[in-house]
Amino acid sequence: MDTGDSMKAFFDPTSVAVVGASRAAGKGGNTIVANMLEFGFGGRIYPVNPSAGEILGLQAYPSLAELPDAPDLVVAVLPRLQTAELMKDCAAAHVGSVIIPAAGFSDAGDEGRRLQDDVMGIASSAGIRVMGPNSIGTVNTGAGLATSIVTLERLKEGGVSIFGQTGMFASGIARWINTSEHFGIRKIACLGNKADIDENDLLEHLADDPGTRVIGAYTEGVRDGERFARALARAAAAKPVLLMKSGRTETGRRARESHTGALAGSEQVYAGVIEQSGAIRVDDFEEMFDCAKAFEWLPAPRGNRVGVISITGVGCVLSADASAVHGLVMPPIADSTVEAMRGALPEWAPVSNPADIWAGIESSGAEATYRAVASAIADDPSVDSLLLIFTLIPESRLDVAALFDEIRSAHPEKPAVAALMAGEATMHVEWKEALESAGVPAYTSPERALRALGALCSYAKRTDPLNPPEVHQTTTHHRRKT
Amino acid sequence: MDTGDSMKAFFDPTSVAVVGASRAAGKGGNTIVANMLEFGFGGRIYPVNPSAGEILGLQAYPSLAELPDAPDLVVAVLPRLQTAELMKDCAAAHVGSVIIPAAGFSDAGDEGRRLQDDVMGIASSAGIRVMGPNSIGTVNTGAGLATSIVTLERLKEGGVSIFGQTGMFASGIARWINTSEHFGIRKIACLGNKADIDENDLLEHLADDPGTRVIGAYTEGVRDGERFARALARAAAAKPVLLMKSGRTETGRRARESHTGALAGSEQVYAGVIEQSGAIRVDDFEEMFDCAKAFEWLPAPRGNRVGVISITGVGCVLSADASAVHGLVMPPIADSTVEAMRGALPEWAPVSNPADIWAGIESSGAEATYRAVASAIADDPSVDSLLLIFTLIPESRLDVAALFDEIRSAHPEKPAVAALMAGEATMHVEWKEALESAGVPAYTSPERALRALGALCSYAKRTDPLNPPEVHQTTTHHRRKT
Repeated sequence: MDTGDSMKAFFDPTSVAVVGASRAAGKGGNTIVANMLEFGFGGRIYPVNPSAGEILGLQAYPSLAELPDAPDLVVAVLPRLQTAELMKDCAAAHVGSVIIPAAGFSDAGDEGRRLQDDVMGIASSAGIRVMGPNSIGTVNTGAGLATSIVTLERLKEGGVSIFGQTGMFASGIARWINTSEHFGIRKIACLGNKADIDENDLLEHLADDPGTRVIGAYTEGVRDGERFARALARAAAAKPVLLMKSGRTETGRRARESHTGALAGSEQVYAGVIEQSGAIRVDDFEEMFDCAKAFEWLPAPRGNRVGVISITGVGCVLSADASAVHGLVMPPIADSTVEAMRGALPEWAPVSNPADIWAGIESSGAEATYRAVASAIADDPSVDSLLLIFTLIPESRLDVAALFDEIRSAHPEKPAVAALMAGEATMHVEWKEALESAGVPAYTSPERALRALGALCSYAKRTDPLNPPEVHQTTTHHRRKT
Repeated sequence: MDTGDSMKAFFDPTSVAVVGASRAAGKGGNTIVANMLEFGFGGRIYPVNPSAGEILGLQAYPSLAELPDAPDLVVAVLPRLQTAELMKDCAAAHVGSVIIPAAGFSDAGDEGRRLQDDVMGIASSAGIRVMGPNSIGTVNTGAGLATSIVTLERLKEGGVSIFGQTGMFASGIARWINTSEHFGIRKIACLGNKADIDENDLLEHLADDPGTRVIGAYTEGVRDGERFARALARAAAAKPVLLMKSGRTETGRRARESHTGALAGSEQVYAGVIEQSGAIRVDDFEEMFDCAKAFEWLPAPRGNRVGVISITGVGCVLSADASAVHGLVMPPIADSTVEAMRGALPEWAPVSNPADIWAGIESSGAEATYRAVASAIADDPSVDSLLLIFTLIPESRLDVAALFDEIRSAHPEKPAVAALMAGEATMHVEWKEALESAGVPAYTSPERALRALGALCSYAKRTDPLNPPEVHQTTTHHRRKT
């Protein structure tokens, strides 16, 4: 089976039939059509409804059989008991690809499982590829495609593709990314019960998708472990793959079986497969998105040596702990850097990496201190990446996007990230937006920032054998002789 | 030394002299006076400045010696090199308590350490208690006291007191709590270099403070380990103590020594002392505040059995994993609960705990489904606490504060929390505010919500020997017979 071709209809169809399309706002069969219009789908949309003449300005058709041509993709917004009949119609109409949003199949006990077997038997005989049942749909921003049954606003285009065993990706999570994470999306697929299309199909497809630069995947367990190991390793060799695997505990495994009726191997087996593949295992969605934006926006660091600048001493201490946890080191800085930093700080202030610049803020103000210290540390040849920590108080106002712009212009090869620790909530939203619209990841803690830098760094090291070897921690504090 | 009395002047003075008070907005010596006025301090404020006649409408005095009476508390907003001289003036004026905001003492190498020893020698001979150097100050909402050198808005009053080795507590963190965490503050103390007053003084004071119901503390290491072990255990016996200890790694320990010049024992020793004390160790500020609001707002659960309701299957799976990690179980629900839930869900939908209610949302809408299922599970006698998971999409709009109000009226004895998973950023802010102004903790993930419930539960179990023993996980899925 040519997976590449089969996936094409789910992401880049020339025509989509929405069976069960509805004139009633709020119904899934209306929402899909609205989403396709919102995203600006370039192909043909065929609403199918036995009685409606027009839906959202588009001509509707009473049945699949009466469409002007066979659609590339059918989205079946029908009650679960009508799904088998529809699948027969699809076979008759030579449809090759169907998305089934309805739940109540293998996710709902033995009766549901039998129903799913019936539907899939028909699909399989006709060579129809199926996403679902229990799938919220797909998105491809490059084609203006959005088959979600949940209302979406047009998503920002980018290179991150996400897929997995949850409808959240094409509903709540898509909205969250668009309004709060600020990175751009390429493709989304919600796999639902995975009666046919599963993680392996998506990994194989996205590994070769030129528009996908970063992959985020969520799974509760796979059926074909060997193919999974191969597909994961292949995708991870091509681009960063951020993999979240739940069902780590016995209770979690039971809840998962109830969710989509999938079976799964032991946690140890998964841990080994993921480790070997080169994929980056993330614990939760927060970590997935924290890392996704770092990979999407930042260059690969040349090594694991990070320079840290903090308005507060606690930021330095937490960064030191977190660096050690995430495989990074904070190297001693060069004498020239020390001299450059001294200009921005009172004469008695200790100068080191991590740099606690509170004394400078008090004497020279936030703008001047951050600029001078950040530019000195960015220039230091022993620093591969930068973390700037801010606390959002009236005393620390400055043009933060301009600050990062300067660093990036001087050192485009060094990834630089921000941590916004505490402070005013509204100021937090403003700063995050200012930074992230400029492609600078802004995290809520030094720990989160360094976790993302650590992921960048291990990926860079794994994929580029010419990378310098890891440095281990040694510290020198530079104090003015007295 | 009577610690209780000594601490009184730092939190509840009848008069405060601000030495180095300034007419210039933005200077620390102006900000403190402004903060005291903003918070509505009921005692006398004496700005001290050699030349100023009036500062922010208050009469200023040229020197400590010329004040109408000896102030209870002096805040010394002076350059570090003038601090020793001031301490002599304080001794002469019979001042008993001094806060030193200036940095550049033991936080700045050998010369700074000598300077600190000089200042502390004078203080000690005169019996003066000192907070700092390098202390941002104290807050007591009950007395309208705010000696922070960073601009604050008046904080919401409540029962949570926080203190430790960071100026963030009386600056960025105070602002963050006030604008984003929504719980009320009783007292704050920033201990700085801890040349005199340290964690032990604060633990002893807050253990007996009737206005403090929950304690949050941050430390990078203590000097007197035995007194710390006693003070921590005493405070933890009186109320929940959430303790964050950094410097876990070798690098972190070195950064800490540079931050405030403190020495510290090994990580293993701390881990043992904290474990034995009954304090709750938290990993970061996020966990501290997540737990603080749960303890401040919620009743103690009767046991560790949690009922989980989720709009999405992934919420159920993540909750199952997190429950196991945090010592909670999701018990099978009673037959009567199953019957009550069936009314809100399609006949084919599986009914269990955790409850995935997406099918109900599609058929009956969010409002009706959440209400019916939450009320059924809250009524179940085998459930001790509740977690409701929401995804903020247009399809799930409902009056969420009213929903929790209903649960709380019916079962005031069962703590109930919310997880707001993904969705629209602005909707997230609105829902969080609606819930938290009503005293319902709203977390951004099921994992964070269950971590807080787990902390409530272990605390309840430890402090109430009559609590039923922990239940271990067994699961039964109730499916309609077919």
